[in-house]
This record gives sequence, C-alpha cells and structure tokens, in this order.
Amino acid sequence: MVVVLEKNIGDKLIEDIIKHLEDFGFAVHKSTGVEQIVLGAIGVKPDFDIRKVKVLDGVSEVYRITEPFKLASRSFKKEDTKIKLGNSCIGENEIIVFAGPCSVENEHQMFTIAEIVATAGAKILRGGAFKPRTSPYAFQGLGEEGLKLIRNAADANNLLVVTEILEATQIDLIGKYTDIYQVGARNMQNFPLLKELGKTNKPVMLKRGLSATIEEWLMSAEYILSNGNKDVMLCERGIRTFETYTRNTFDVSAIPVVHKKSHLPVIADPSHAVGLRDKVMPLALAAVAAGTDGLMIEVHHDPEKALSDGPQALLPNQFIELMKQVKLIAEVIGRKI
Amino acid sequence: MVVVLEKNIGDKLIEDIIKHLEDFGFAVHKSTGVEQIVLGAIGVKPDFDIRKVKVLDGVSEVYRITEPFKLASRSFKKEDTKIKLGNSCIGENEIIVFAGPCSVENEHQMFTIAEIVATAGAKILRGGAFKPRTSPYAFQGLGEEGLKLIRNAADANNLLVVTEILEATQIDLIGKYTDIYQVGARNMQNFPLLKELGKTNKPVMLKRGLSATIEEWLMSAEYILSNGNKDVMLCERGIRTFETYTRNTFDVSAIPVVHKKSHLPVIADPSHAVGLRDKVMPLALAAVAAGTDGLMIEVHHDPEKALSDGPQALLPNQFIELMKQVKLIAEVIGRKI
Amino acid sequence: MVVVLEKNIGDKLIEDIIKHLEDFGFAVHKSTGVEQIVLGAIGVKPDFDIRKVKVLDGVSEVYRITEPFKLASRSFKKEDTKIKLGNSCIGENEIIVFAGPCSVENEHQMFTIAEIVATAGAKILRGGAFKPRTSPYAFQGLGEEGLKLIRNAADANNLLVVTEILEATQIDLIGKYTDIYQVGARNMQNFPLLKELGKTNKPVMLKRGLSATIEEWLMSAEYILSNGNKDVMLCERGIRTFETYTRNTFDVSAIPVVHKKSHLPVIADPSHAVGLRDKVMPLALAAVAAGTDGLMIEVHHDPEKALSDGPQALLPNQFIELMKQVKLIAEVIGRKI
Amino acid sequence: MVVVLEKNIGDKLIEDIIKHLEDFGFAVHKSTGVEQIVLGAIGVKPDFDIRKVKVLDGVSEVYRITEPFKLASRSFKKEDTKIKLGNSCIGENEIIVFAGPCSVENEHQMFTIAEIVATAGAKILRGGAFKPRTSPYAFQGLGEEGLKLIRNAADANNLLVVTEILEATQIDLIGKYTDIYQVGARNMQNFPLLKELGKTNKPVMLKRGLSATIEEWLMSAEYILSNGNKDVMLCERGIRTFETYTRNTFDVSAIPVVHKKSHLPVIADPSHAVGLRDKVMPLALAAVAAGTDGLMIEVHHDPEKALSDGPQALLPNQFIELMKQVKLIAEVIGRKI
Repeated sequence: MVVVLEKNIGDKLIEDIIKHLEDFGFAVHKSTGVEQIVLGAIGVKPDFDIRKVKVLDGVSEVYRITEPFKLASRSFKKEDTKIKLGNSCIGENEIIVFAGPCSVENEHQMFTIAEIVATAGAKILRGGAFKPRTSPYAFQGLGEEGLKLIRNAADANNLLVVTEILEATQIDLIGKYTDIYQVGARNMQNFPLLKELGKTNKPVMLKRGLSATIEEWLMSAEYILSNGNKDVMLCERGIRTFETYTRNTFDVSAIPVVHKKSHLPVIADPSHAVGLRDKVMPLALAAVAAGTDGLMIEVHHDPEKALSDGPQALLPNQFIELMKQVKLIAEVIGRKI
Repeated sequence: MVVVLEKNIGDKLIEDIIKHLEDFGFAVHKSTGVEQIVLGAIGVKPDFDIRKVKVLDGVSEVYRITEPFKLASRSFKKEDTKIKLGNSCIGENEIIVFAGPCSVENEHQMFTIAEIVATAGAKILRGGAFKPRTSPYAFQGLGEEGLKLIRNAADANNLLVVTEILEATQIDLIGKYTDIYQVGARNMQNFPLLKELGKTNKPVMLKRGLSATIEEWLMSAEYILSNGNKDVMLCERGIRTFETYTRNTFDVSAIPVVHKKSHLPVIADPSHAVGLRDKVMPLALAAVAAGTDGLMIEVHHDPEKALSDGPQALLPNQFIELMKQVKLIAEVIGRKI
Repeated sequence: MVVVLEKNIGDKLIEDIIKHLEDFGFAVHKSTGVEQIVLGAIGVKPDFDIRKVKVLDGVSEVYRITEPFKLASRSFKKEDTKIKLGNSCIGENEIIVFAGPCSVENEHQMFTIAEIVATAGAKILRGGAFKPRTSPYAFQGLGEEGLKLIRNAADANNLLVVTEILEATQIDLIGKYTDIYQVGARNMQNFPLLKELGKTNKPVMLKRGLSATIEEWLMSAEYILSNGNKDVMLCERGIRTFETYTRNTFDVSAIPVVHKKSHLPVIADPSHAVGLRDKVMPLALAAVAAGTDGLMIEVHHDPEKALSDGPQALLPNQFIELMKQVKLIAEVIGRKI
Repeated sequence: MVVVLEKNIGDKLIEDIIKHLEDFGFAVHKSTGVEQIVLGAIGVKPDFDIRKVKVLDGVSEVYRITEPFKLASRSFKKEDTKIKLGNSCIGENEIIVFAGPCSVENEHQMFTIAEIVATAGAKILRGGAFKPRTSPYAFQGLGEEGLKLIRNAADANNLLVVTEILEATQIDLIGKYTDIYQVGARNMQNFPLLKELGKTNKPVMLKRGLSATIEEWLMSAEYILSNGNKDVMLCERGIRTFETYTRNTFDVSAIPVVHKKSHLPVIADPSHAVGLRDKVMPLALAAVAAGTDGLMIEVHHDPEKALSDGPQALLPNQFIELMKQVKLIAEVIGRKI
C-alpha cells in the first residue's frame, strides 16, 4: 500500500500516521520528495480496507498495490487452467462450443435442438431449467423436469450439459443432471452460492455481472477457488452501457485482458450480449479472432414459439453457417474447433 | 404495445404482421400516417417479450406502453404505503432514522452504539451479522451470535432491528431476531430470496442494485408484493458511475421519482453512497430536503477499530449534530423527526 | 509516481527500470517488501503519460500520486475564490440565483421573465442566443439579436447576464453583451475555447460534461486558470447514468467534493439535470442543503410555447415558491439568499 | 409519435390532449384498449421536443416513432456510401488501413513511419498536428509545421493524409494539407465545427464521443450531411465504461449496428480504445471479423520517445504481423486488404 501525505504537514502528524500504519500491522518505508512525502506500507492483507488510512489526518491519497485476488491470478499460477470434461478440454487449443435453447421447454424441443447442435460440432448442450427473470410474471422454467430433459437429450447426442443454478440449496438436485454449473450475471456476487460451489467437484461457469469490472469478476472466481474447486471458467456476456440499439455491450477486450491477468479460461456469449439474432454471427467471429476459449450460442429450431429469448436464438441453418466461419477464423489464429 | 412498421412495405407483409400479433393474443388497431403505418396491439401481458415482434420482417420499432410492474405502481394503488412497526410508522409524516454500525462486532460495541443512537432520536438499530464482501478473505460477520447481540442491544434501548439476509434459507433464523429484513444491493435480483421474503409477514427493505434502473428496482419489489407481503420499503444507496472521488453516486432524484411512480416508502442511505464520513452530513440533509421517508446512517463509537466500513461511519457527536440539522430541514418542508 | 514491480524479477531488470525512470527525469527511491519491490519516482510533471512506465518489462502497476491539476486545487489556494459582479459575489455566504428561459425568443418573453425572476430575488438572468442542439433541424437560437434582448431585459431589471458561448470566435461578440460566459457540457473539453476564455477578463461558468469525472472537470478549469483568468465557477448539471426516468442524474455529492478538492465556487442546475418541471423543486432544495453556492433555474411564463426545453421550465408561481423554500433551507445551514 | 394516456381519465381531458396535439400540427388517431387509450400523432418534425406532450395532464408516456436522423439513415439511402480517395475507396470490399503515429513530432519520425506503414500495406497516414489534451501542460502539437511534415511524408510514400481539426477556423489551414478531416471524440458534438465541415468538399472522419450512443453519433453525422458534404465515415474508438484495466471499452457491436442503421462506412480504432499495445492486435482482428470497413492503427518506430500515446503504438514488426493476420481474416469473410 502506498500512502501519499498532504503537502507541508508537520513532523508530529507524519509520526502519528506511521504509528497508525504500524498498529495496522504494516512495515513502513518513508520516501521524501521535493513537494511531498510518500509512505510505502508493506504487508497489506487482501481484506484490509484502505479507507481506514484515507480518513487519517494528513493523508492525501492511498493506493493498494497488490491485486486483491490471488488464486485466480496469473502471477500465482503461470500455466493456463485446463478443464477436462469427457473428450473435451476447455482452455486448450480447441475452441469449445456450448449451444442450445435459452430455456428447456419440452422433450421434442430438446431432442431436436440437441441433434442439430451436436451434428454441427457443438460439444456442450445449454438450456435453463431454473430461469432468473426480471418480472415475477414471466416463465420461470420447468424445474427438475427440465433437468431430466436436457440430460437425456445430451446423452442421446453425446453432449455434455451446462445449466444455471440460482441458489446453494439447488446444488445436489442440479448436480445429479449437469456437468457444469452455470452462475448467471445477476448472481456473480451471490457469495453464499459461490462458497458452496467451491466445495463441489464439478466445473463452474461464472458469468460476468452486468456492470462488474474484471477485477470484481476475478474476485468472485476467487470465492470458488478458495473453497477448493479449481475448475472455474469465466463467461463474458456483455456489460451495461448507455447504448440502446443492443441489449448489452459485448466487451471483446475482456478476452485478452482475462488471459493476461488470470490463468482461467474465458468463454464468450454473444447471444445474451447483443440480444438480437442478426448481430450474433459478427460478434461470435470477433470473439474467436480475439482469442476466446469457447462460444456459448443460443439455438432454437422454432424461435417464434420459444418461451424465453427466442429473438436472440439462431436458426439451425444459421448455426451451421456460424460453425463453418468459426472454423476458418480459428485456423487463421492457429486454433481449431 | 405499439408496433411501427417500416416505410413502403407491401400489404401482404402488413397482413402477416397483424396475423402474428393476433396469434400472440393481441387485439390490433391500425393507424396509417403519411410516411408510416403504426399498429396498436392491445392486451399485452407483463411477461411478453417484445423482441418477438421486433424480429418480424417489416417491423421497425416496438414500444411496450404499459409499465412492467403493477402492484408496486402508483396507478394501481394511489395511497402511500405505511408500514407500522411498534410506535413508528414508515411512510408517514415522520422521517424515520435507522442507525448503527456496519457490522455487529461484539456486545460492548452494540450496546454502546445503540444507546448513542437511541438517545439522539433514531428508531431502528442497524448492523450486519451476515456480510456480503467482495473478497473471500474479508470479515464475513458473526452469524447468529451477531443477531442475538443486535436484538438485545435494541431491546435494551427501545429500538427496532434491521439486518441483512443473504439467502432464503436464513429466513427463519434471522426472522427470530429482526423486525425488518434488509436485502442488499447485490441481491436486488436474487429472485428465489425475494419470492420467499414475499411469503413472510415482516417488512422488507430492498436496496437498489449498483447499476439498476428504478424500473428494475420496482420490478424486484413486485416479486415480494406478488407473493403476498405488502410491507416493502425501498432504499437508495448510491449507483455506480464514472466518478471516483466518491464510492458511489447518491441518486437524490430517485426519491421524488419513486414517490411519483410508486406508493412505497423510500429510505436514503448516504453512508454507503459516498463512502467517506465527511460527505455523509451534506448528503443526508439533501435527502431530507428532497423528501425521503427515512435515513439510514452508519454510526460507530470507535470507527478506527471497526471490522468493516469504519471510514464511512459517523462519530457519536457527528450523529447528534446530524440529527439536529435533519430536524430543522424536516420542519422547513413540513415534516418531523 | 509509484511503480510497483512484478514479483521475483531479476536485479538486471530492476536496474533497467530505474535507469528508464532516471532518463525520464525522475529521482528514484527503492522500497523492498516481503513479496514485491516498489519504486517511488519523485518529480513527475503534470503532463507525463504514466503509460510510458506501465509498458516497461517487469512493471506491474503504476500510480500517479500528484493531482494532475494545480491552480484549481485547494492545496494550491486554501481560500475560497470569490467572484465579485456588481453588487453580488459568487462564492460567499449568499446563495446566488441564476434564472431565466432556456432560449432567448423575443422581447416580450425576455422582459416578462426578467421582471418575474428579479422580483422573486434572482440576481442573474440566463438565456441562450446560440444553442447547441443534438439535431441540426432544431431551433439554433437568435444570435446577436438574442444577445441584445437579454442585455436590455437584464438592465431594465437590475440583473446581470449569463449566456452560452460555443466557439472562440464568438468571444468579442458575446463579450459585448454578457457578464459571464457559460461553457456548456458538450464543450467542457473544447480546449481552444477554454484557452481563449482564459485570456478574457470576464468570469466563466464551466458546466460539467455529461460523463466527465470531477477530476476531468477541474482539469478543464485549469485550462482557463492557467491562461490568466481566475474567475471560474463550476456548474453541476447532471451526469449520464442508466436511469431513464430522469434526463440525467443530478450528482449532489459533487457539491461537497468540489468544495474539498478545489477553491472554486460551484453552482447547481437541477433543471437540466432532471429535465421535468415537477422534480426541479426537490432537487434545488437538496442542492442548497448540500452546500451549493448558487442555483441555475429555468423559468418561463408560457412554457408550452417555449422554443426549447419548455417542459423543464418552472412557471412563475412555482419559481416564487421555490425561492421561499430555498431561503428557509439556506437559513438552516447558516447561509442566506 | 405515440401518446399513451393515463388510465380512467375523463373525456374532457382526452379532448384537451387531442386539441393540444392538433395545435402542435399533428394529425391524431385514437385507439381505445381495454385498460388504456393510445393516441397516434402523425407528422412529427425531427426537432419536436416530445417532453412538450409528456408534461400535459393525463399523459402517461410518449414515444417518438421516427428516427431523429434522416440523411444518415439506411432507410433514406439503401446503398452503401463509398468514398473515393486517390486509388482507394472507403466503404467497398477492401478494408482500408490508416496508420501512423499519434502526434507528428519531426521530419525523421514522419518519414520513417510513413515508409514502414506504406510498405506494409497501409493506404492513409495518420498523425496529429493539433492535439486536444486533458491537461493544459501536455504537448499540444506542432501546428502548421506538423501539417507540412505529414503531407510531405505521405506524398513521398504514395499515401493519403488524415489529421485532426479542433475548430472551424482551422478548416482552410488544415485543408491545404489533409485529404480527410478527423473530428475527435471530444468534438463529436461541436456543432459549429460540424456545420462548417459540412460546407467543405473533403471527406470527414467522425469519431464516436466517449459516452455517446450510436443514435447521437448519427445525429452528429447528420449535421455534416445536411450542410452538403456527403462523404462522412464514422470511427468507433471505444466508449467509457466502469472497466479500468482498459483505457476505454471497444464496442465491437457498433460495427454491425451502424451497418444496419446507416449507409455510412465505419472504421475501427483499437489503439485508442484499449490504450495498451499488447491488446491492439486481438481487437483489430475482432473488428475485421465483425465487418469493419477500415482500421486506424497507431505505429511508432521509437514509442518510448513518442511525445504522446507512445504506449499504445505498435512497433514496426508488430504492425507488419498485424497486416498479415488482418489479410487472412479478411479473406475468411470475403473481403480483402
């Protein structure tokens, strides 16, 4: 921690501040400049609230100089985290495609879509059985019945399953059916849920919160990692900005930034980011060009009748076309699908 | 719902769109203008996803014309909601003050602070026993031990209790000790929690999410109301903006806006909004001048030793001074404290 | 400037970094901690781009520890800046009220409104003759004819004049008629304009940009101050947030923050911030309670016919009522109007 | 314009509102629904302030149903705008690369960089002679001397020139040397400048404002177009978000959105968006994959000594590598470079 003192303060006040810092447990180094004195406080703990120093008399500015996350950090672990699942591995050279409908609706829908996406090259089937909806009057998902349907449709097509979890009490139930727990954007800081997922032995996909910084996102990953579960993947799904033509703004630069700051794999979800079908393709290609480790794409064979988010789902032939283009872009940057 | 068609589209396409709208269950009125045709679609359900219409061929823009919330709306219930609690009533002429430390730390702390704030005129004691913290390494609260301490300290000083709940499984435990359940900003869209709180018979204080719009906030209140609990108060605690000199930006205009759009009372929490002690007083006075129904103020007798958020807590004499000023401003606008 | 090095880097790299810093003109202090080395680089110039250090091999983080503004800073000048204008003084105990229509429209309008606001206690008449409008098809102002009208209406009612300037070439023309140059939010970073205004001898009111931080706002004030003009007042007029019920979000905490960071007076413009008449009163009272040095209020005797921004203008009787309430709140905090 | 009335209002009030709308010049259609009445007001002018209707008694919501821009709109002009310049054409199949340093610094620098970028395949040389800087103490550019240097360096390498203009009085001076006028993000709403550029006969590159919506950006383009200059290209250079690891957030979805809403070409500037060299490559490739018509890349042969923005400039060999990769991605999506 670096503590910048106000200009022209007396020696007594400087001593007081140093005393305070030592009482907080820091070793203190003093640098005297032309105009200002700067104190280096060594040994800051990750949970220290720097405002405790900011409010001291004579203190002008305080900077934390260590990243507040540790286990999620590239400086803690240099090698990329690779998450093995069946024949797939997330975080290696292959770009893994997650595809499926927004919500599980019925058996016919799930088996139809599962076959389409498996044939086109997707490895993981997505679909929500418990849906977090802004309105209490909107479709909330099929519950356990939906979990069974997605599991069966995946098994019949040699796919893995990812599905969303809303609270810690659902861990056992959902764990019976899924291969990956998905934590949605609204639950990125649902800390009781993150802690309990940290105690499971299944991979977790952690979506970025709607207005979360990358640092906060990595701090949430730290909750899972520090409870013992090392298999965390991050998912960029768009952030809130002032733009209204798109549902959210897909932050493509999050992909290289996460790769630099952390060893965790990052998946791109352009469907949720943009919210309308005709923009999904260019954003998916952009994500691949920027180095994403995976793509999460909504696909529906009959989107007009979809119970949720139909307008952002690709039609089957659009998805097939997308997979072809993704393959070509992946090859340019030395990856495969 | 209003559907604006693209210019110069053929009759066949117009008929198709009208047919689609009727299939969705709408009664359709057609308005032909000089340049464009506008369709009025009557009978929209609150959970209808308007993007289903947006993606139809020939459709240019779609507007939902009904507010997506109902029970929370001023047009549904004209009279102010008044929440009676002991001798206090939230939402009437009196401005109710909630005060106390950020976290419950120990018996001495709670009894000391409770006496200070009760003497100065506060009616409700605040203090967290379960703390949502960005870092997994930060102090997470005393748990049930903390609940007991805050209850006893409140009872000894004739105060009521408000404390935060993090997940639905805590409802019974926390309900044994608290008078009001507090839902924090990070849980504003924790829908399973909101649903279960809607089935309890204790008031709920719902904090605004960090980057939530007022409409989304009212939609979250709707989750509680539609499950049967009518005693909901809203709490403005600052929103995220680009400004860095303050922790968050206190949205003072949310107070008159909520009062116009909704019948629910609104409480202001300037301590969390600004994050530093010396800005709490001017913001608290501003909130009163703007018409708030209550104030939530962090107070600590020894903030340097506080386990969380000490830097934003008022010292006892600052809180006493605040209460004096609040009283005077309240009188100017015809209210009391 | 504080330079945090990466963990476990070799001595050669550390020496290289220190050499670079010295070549940039810094004196360097080295602090060796348990895990990391921190370099203090003393003597940073206000225009030094810290990214030059950020990109060096072995550097983890870089922090600028001096405020980038100087003349605008409270640490440079401890006493409040007071701007004397006729019998008024902005930045003293009296809260100065600026009032008038959005645009100058015609003689009858200006004289009618000037008399209303002067009688109610305003000291400065506002009104635009050159209007920056988002649409090229909207009313762009009367030009010099408008300047004459506002000057005459002000003189007839013993008021001063504030009016907006859009580019440096207008300085002489507008200077013939106005007492204060107003720089609008969209021009907060129009640097050629700011420089030239710094060479005039009339006060400048600098509005905060739509998404500007307070630091950027003070940097823009620095452009005026460093060119020789010391009479700068700042005007908070709302910032852009995700909220849509209000036009902008009035940042009431900017008032105490500016007073702490700078010696310059700050004026509040709730009319532009909120954009609708019925919210102007509560926000104006909030600004006074928070310590504003002045209020800028739009008033129109016939707002339905106003050529711009009529919907946010107060009616004459609303303005009279506002002035009464402002007086009472001002007295509570020891100020007057 | 669509006007939604409040529920259960009387016939007299409805008539009043209709009368008002007719006085404003609208033809009015009335749609009576189960719960609410909706009025369609036909004939809205682009400059009509819809808040004039919002403030009428009995009005609940008002929606503008026509886009506020016209000449910039895809519905006004279906064919892509193509801007011919020498042997290049912006807006056709070829992706045009603009490259060069942030600022013109001296003859050696300009000739060195011009040769590097021309050899690698760039068509247009960039470099600022008038620099808008946040700090008044930062390097402000070489002025006319800089214009001469960039022109000569471009001519010697068969390149075209783009350079920034800060105010309308510079049009003639800069026009003597440049092929394209660049309007920076801070001047996106400098309306006097846009109007005058609309009267010139050279192409204009209009950068998106830091927190501008795409609609506002197109409205600013409308200022240029409506004054007679049809050769406008847009440049996405990142928007302000809460993320701090990057300088700005590059909005890659702006590319397909602009292509849908408008016929104007769009250029991507990843260097300014991300602010650090090592993220420029992935973002440039992402922009190409998403369909950009051009790339604007900062290149410097000695970035450590650059007078501005050196840290985001690519080194010569990085630029050559970038051009190779861009070529491959372009081919995948059926374009060339």
